[in-house]
Amino acid sequence: MTLTVDQLSESELLARIFPRLPAGTSTLLGPGDDAAIISAPDGRTVISIDTQVQDKDFRLAWPNGYATTGFDVGWKAAAQNLSDINAMGAVATAMVVSLTLPGTTPVGWVEGLADGLGAAIAALGAESCSVAGGDLSGGSEIVVTVAVTGSLEGREPLLRSGAQPGDIIAVCGNLGFSAAGWALQESSIGAGSQTTALQKAARLFNRPEPPLEAGPAAAAAGATAMMDISDGLLRDAARLAAASGTRLDLNGVVLGREAEKLSECGRLLGLDPLQWVLTGGEDHGLLSTFPANAVLPCGFIGIGSVLSAGGGRPAVSIDGRNFKSVVDGAVGWDHFAV
Amino acid sequence: MTLTVDQLSESELLARIFPRLPAGTSTLLGPGDDAAIISAPDGRTVISIDTQVQDKDFRLAWPNGYATTGFDVGWKAAAQNLSDINAMGAVATAMVVSLTLPGTTPVGWVEGLADGLGAAIAALGAESCSVAGGDLSGGSEIVVTVAVTGSLEGREPLLRSGAQPGDIIAVCGNLGFSAAGWALQESSIGAGSQTTALQKAARLFNRPEPPLEAGPAAAAAGATAMMDISDGLLRDAARLAAASGTRLDLNGVVLGREAEKLSECGRLLGLDPLQWVLTGGEDHGLLSTFPANAVLPCGFIGIGSVLSAGGGRPAVSIDGRNFKSVVDGAVGWDHFAV
Repeated sequence: MTLTVDQLSESELLARIFPRLPAGTSTLLGPGDDAAIISAPDGRTVISIDTQVQDKDFRLAWPNGYATTGFDVGWKAAAQNLSDINAMGAVATAMVVSLTLPGTTPVGWVEGLADGLGAAIAALGAESCSVAGGDLSGGSEIVVTVAVTGSLEGREPLLRSGAQPGDIIAVCGNLGFSAAGWALQESSIGAGSQTTALQKAARLFNRPEPPLEAGPAAAAAGATAMMDISDGLLRDAARLAAASGTRLDLNGVVLGREAEKLSECGRLLGLDPLQWVLTGGEDHGLLSTFPANAVLPCGFIGIGSVLSAGGGRPAVSIDGRNFKSVVDGAVGWDHFAV
Repeated sequence: MTLTVDQLSESELLARIFPRLPAGTSTLLGPGDDAAIISAPDGRTVISIDTQVQDKDFRLAWPNGYATTGFDVGWKAAAQNLSDINAMGAVATAMVVSLTLPGTTPVGWVEGLADGLGAAIAALGAESCSVAGGDLSGGSEIVVTVAVTGSLEGREPLLRSGAQPGDIIAVCGNLGFSAAGWALQESSIGAGSQTTALQKAARLFNRPEPPLEAGPAAAAAGATAMMDISDGLLRDAARLAAASGTRLDLNGVVLGREAEKLSECGRLLGLDPLQWVLTGGEDHGLLSTFPANAVLPCGFIGIGSVLSAGGGRPAVSIDGRNFKSVVDGAVGWDHFAV
């Protein structure tokens, strides 16, 4: 018999979760009171919140046989929240976690989730970040919400609105791997038949690897604007362009080179890897702009130029070609799109 | 035709929500970037997170005909989170909100939720608190999670662990009204047949009124321990006793006087109001302990004494009577209890 959460009291379940959660150097008061207390050494706290919903963001059973583990969901919850802090040029200090769980959820799945949060924090290099508190609720589907705090360490934040005509556009991190992994799990290619390239895509979908050192490094290198690529490059580029009142022209040759990294996955899955690069979400790389004379920090590659807006020209183009459809939501992620 | 959220893009829905959200004096950067930035003037940020789930914490259709509005859910989300900050002796600075919504949710319901957040923040006196950001997801039931930050304004936090033998136990705020309102909505007494007392109970269930001035006042008056009463007086008292390594003996006469305030509701609903006072959750009053010689701040009433633990005696008693069952979860709220 699998032990499920409805067989434990709330305090018994918490007693199994708490010892698995990482303690960070920025936490002044951890779980056990009505609230936690986090250090904010420069007098400011960066904060963001993100949610994963069963059968929307993950499935317990995929067409290709994969079953998303609690560890995967915990890792991804940590990664996507750490990425939001990274995108501001900040360093994460703490997470608080709310779990909504059906009573039939195995206790081991929830323990795996706690382990996944801690494993991602450690593997991605966010050691100062703790899981400082949380909340448990019952529900008919699993919903995992994490709020994360961060410290700018005295730096100015990097916003979406700072891009200037003449700036270089640069990205850091993976483009399209998560989308390829999603397509894989929607396919009939099970674990036993996967090549190394397919395995990598699946891993990066289930356990994304945002480049956490790159956000503060971009800030130090003089980046003018930044955001994380969570809903697809074109869609997120359109948001940065709109916030900055500029246009962004991307370099098709460079993007094609990114797509080549996914050519084997594309061939095996019968899909166009360039579409993954342009519209795939959840890789949680960084989209940044830098002054034309900046030296790009390690890991960033230039993918285009910031141009002046106006004249009815599209917010985002590739080698000058119109990608207006991006702006009205035709590509990329939209949580309520049919 | 009612406009529902699946008829709008995510950005269209956000454009309807953002203008309704309150801006607080502590917010340095509000919605629109990957994260918000909140002031933390004393170098520390208090943080908590709470979730409401449809058909667990509220219903869109109750037996007595009441339909929980978005405004109610927004108010309650704000109130219960503000209460967690209050219980530390802190002042709220910001909220971030994650909404998981079925596509069929009326847009007006979501707009009401945004209005309810702002109305509670204003009515409860938390003007420095903003709604600084959020996240939208699709799902099969409504789940509303709020994370809230606060400032201790240089004070030491009030923990559950500080009660000392000899201290006075005191409460501030309503006891049992929320439970009475819940019982009302589970009854057959519709809005047209409700007395003023029943209406008050329903209001305090749907829109609780935590005493936000009382947390910082208790800290200033030298309180030794504090928590908010969210899961019932006996259950929460047992938690405070356990954290402090003490026993709590409550005064039955004083608690009976609290129950008298609910006598009309009890009579009309055929239930014992003392049970509501002892085990009713979600009023979000404060349970505090003070040194025996302290002058209780305005709004607090003494309800008992802190005693030394030991000798197999119960963690919480009333006039010395055993309430051991409290400790093992037999009364009060447990989110996974059957």
